[in-house]
Amino acid sequence: MAADSAVRLVLEGYKAAVFAKDVDAFIALYDAELQVFDMWGQWSHRGLAAWRTMAAEWFGSLGTERVVVDFSEVHTVASPDLAVAYAFVTYTAVDADGAKLRSLDNRMTLALRPQGGAWKIVHEHTSAPIDGETTKAIFKR
Amino acid sequence: MAADSAVRLVLEGYKAAVFAKDVDAFIALYDAELQVFDMWGQWSHRGLAAWRTMAAEWFGSLGTERVVVDFSEVHTVASPDLAVAYAFVTYTAVDADGAKLRSLDNRMTLALRPQGGAWKIVHEHTSAPIDGETTKAIFKR
Repeated sequence: MAADSAVRLVLEGYKAAVFAKDVDAFIALYDAELQVFDMWGQWSHRGLAAWRTMAAEWFGSLGTERVVVDFSEVHTVASPDLAVAYAFVTYTAVDADGAKLRSLDNRMTLALRPQGGAWKIVHEHTSAPIDGETTKAIFKR
Repeated sequence: MAADSAVRLVLEGYKAAVFAKDVDAFIALYDAELQVFDMWGQWSHRGLAAWRTMAAEWFGSLGTERVVVDFSEVHTVASPDLAVAYAFVTYTAVDADGAKLRSLDNRMTLALRPQGGAWKIVHEHTSAPIDGETTKAIFKR
């Protein structure tokens, strides 16, 4: 599969897994050699077990809420056996009726490589920019 | 040149350009289609002119100080025409005599592609993790 299409599939898979709060589907998007620089709290997550723990805690904390993920300005740099995608991501929490509760923006960079027909995320980096005066994160674009 | 060696050269070039406060040498490391998700203040910098402005302001703000860059735990995922590198980065400010003044840690992800013999950075993402309680950046690993 061409890298561009593969990246689009992975992004759709990410949105679907998060909305469904499906830890298995979420983890299936990632490569066994995964290292994630996640926005929250920790410098690095290494390997699928650590990342599964993060996902289980995240989805488990949501109660009856769901999270709608939206990617914008997706750029892909692709080669036959490696791709990089970067984008802005909006995470919107909605209640059981689908009403919007709150949202925050992120920047996301993904590195993906082909593995057994699909492409898997081998590295992910999410962040928000930091205000130089307050050292607080800026959560809205 | 193999991607691994190319990445190492770019990282050495980054350290040297920052220490020398050399805007031209710094910008020469980057691809014309550059997009940077930088840690400070702004969601995105697009293209060499925007990134040159950032570098000129950064280096110009240092006065007689210099910045020593150190990369650790560098991982490279390489293909013949695209590479991804991610690492922890420590920026240490030193005075005119080389005495350490302060330092902070970052996570950095780079995407590079070959161009005219050298490899150039086409995407850069730097960040620090955010404390969930205070929403402040955590600057030390």
